[in-house]
Amino acid sequence: MKTRGSLIVLSGFAGVGKGTVLKSLFETREGYAYSVSATTRSPRPGEVDGVHYFFVTKDRFEEMIRGEELLEYANYVGNYYGTPRSYVEEKLEEGFDVILEIEVQGALNIKKKVPDAVLIYMLPPGAKVLYDRLKGRGTETDEVIAKRMKRAMEEAKRVPEYDYIVINEDVDRCAARLHTLIRAQRLRTRSNMPFLEKLQADLKEVTEG
Amino acid sequence: MKTRGSLIVLSGFAGVGKGTVLKSLFETREGYAYSVSATTRSPRPGEVDGVHYFFVTKDRFEEMIRGEELLEYANYVGNYYGTPRSYVEEKLEEGFDVILEIEVQGALNIKKKVPDAVLIYMLPPGAKVLYDRLKGRGTETDEVIAKRMKRAMEEAKRVPEYDYIVINEDVDRCAARLHTLIRAQRLRTRSNMPFLEKLQADLKEVTEG
Repeated sequence: MKTRGSLIVLSGFAGVGKGTVLKSLFETREGYAYSVSATTRSPRPGEVDGVHYFFVTKDRFEEMIRGEELLEYANYVGNYYGTPRSYVEEKLEEGFDVILEIEVQGALNIKKKVPDAVLIYMLPPGAKVLYDRLKGRGTETDEVIAKRMKRAMEEAKRVPEYDYIVINEDVDRCAARLHTLIRAQRLRTRSNMPFLEKLQADLKEVTEG
Repeated sequence: MKTRGSLIVLSGFAGVGKGTVLKSLFETREGYAYSVSATTRSPRPGEVDGVHYFFVTKDRFEEMIRGEELLEYANYVGNYYGTPRSYVEEKLEEGFDVILEIEVQGALNIKKKVPDAVLIYMLPPGAKVLYDRLKGRGTETDEVIAKRMKRAMEEAKRVPEYDYIVINEDVDRCAARLHTLIRAQRLRTRSNMPFLEKLQADLKEVTEG
């Protein structure tokens, strides 16, 4: 009996290192599936439909919205981006853990649609570390950095609505902790209902002969 | 900043191996505190007050009941046994994970009093394994075994109210899984509120100078 995977929604301040930790996680651990987003933007050279994105027309995308086929979606610069529910569902059924990296509002919306989803927020070990990381990129003006810090202050207010917090003091240690946390979700009772139901039937058979 | 420990409530069918798994867990892992029960029965030779039990008078025990000083209690053969809330609270504050091994009804009562408590049910890998373990003890009559199996069937109905299921197919692997699961509870957002609040204050300071 295959245990169903978990839908993991990961958020974190800009600059906290979500991308780096996820890269380490995917490279060193088995059992994860990327979520492939649907989009109405045109494929760039080298992008493959169904691998990098599901490329769809605007009409099709709006049909997906109306049909509630998307776990979440957003519109950036005139193009839609969204997470197809059926693709995620298929991967979960196959036993993969699916991680969506989504900003706070989208994450909390997913929790409403999929109560089983596990919401994890990645925090820096301290405020100064976050500031230094943003500064260290060397690509942002002081003004942009100040804006990101203020945004972090705003986002921090919603963190209590998340299920778990992981602190990124070190990429590999954070990835290891994240992996442990995600695997532990498979022990949730709701993930083990098929096993429990089979055991109940067998207990009856063994006892009553 | 010390992370508060978790209150873990473990239940499982008679014969599933809870005691053996907990013994392995306590012997091989750090950070656990036994819960010391209060009782009105007399100390046996060698039993130390505050180590094996807190030995109290019937009057004092009934005062503890009325004062809601107990997480749960029961009366066996004329003696009271209960779990003092203050002792558990102190150990959690010190950063220990406290495991209570309690039967189903008591476990669900604790969840009502302490919503943070984590309820874990230990299951055998199959019904036949449970039957063979009960039989293998060699100390029970067929009648007693049949009664225990029937009791397991009844208890199984309440398992969906537990948070997690661990399967005991092997003592050391089950102890390892239990340990991982218990440690993962420290990543719960509610366990990290002091850290989050400090980070919020620091973000403000770093941003606003």
